[in-house]
Amino acid sequence: MVLLRRVLGDELRNQRLRQGRTLREVSAAARVSLGYLSEVERGQKEASSELLASICSALEVPMSVVLRSVSDEFALSELSESVASEVAAVPVEVPPRSTVVASAA
Amino acid sequence: MVLLRRVLGDELRNQRLRQGRTLREVSAAARVSLGYLSEVERGQKEASSELLASICSALEVPMSVVLRSVSDEFALSELSESVASEVAAVPVEVPPRSTVVASAA
Repeated sequence: MVLLRRVLGDELRNQRLRQGRTLREVSAAARVSLGYLSEVERGQKEASSELLASICSALEVPMSVVLRSVSDEFALSELSESVASEVAAVPVEVPPRSTVVASAA
Repeated sequence: MVLLRRVLGDELRNQRLRQGRTLREVSAAARVSLGYLSEVERGQKEASSELLASICSALEVPMSVVLRSVSDEFALSELSESVASEVAAVPVEVPPRSTVVASAA
């Protein structure tokens, strides 16, 4: 199952890396601890709405942009799940085992 | 400040009401308590990623759709905040007080 905190964490980390900024810089600007930001980026902690707003503000990225990107990521994974379940639903025809065997003759 | 849990709560409630379903029905389908779902809908509680997925699944709405709608809502409020700050930045010229006064003569 794709979890919001994972996709959100990836997006926040990507935004930070795109700007060439360190965890230390962004956590200081967002007034959150470095450990907390790191856990949020790795999808290990749910960011509260207030802290998420603070992190986005520190990254100077509108929340709408972050959420749009997260939504797109979910759409992609929903699509691949749906394709996977359709593929799984198609009966696979197993060809009869060939009676021809390799011969060294 | 616009908070994710408020916008998300509104969106989940709108989805439920559009389907004409009760808090009781959706909370049972999502296996969350009615009180919890109600608090999430009112933006009073942060839904964990797992429970959010469970609520979306109970509503049969993909997470991508919910998040896209939430992103659009943020975009609108960011736009209106930016317009408001531009309007505030324009110096207002106060016209000189008119010396003509109404006369009963």
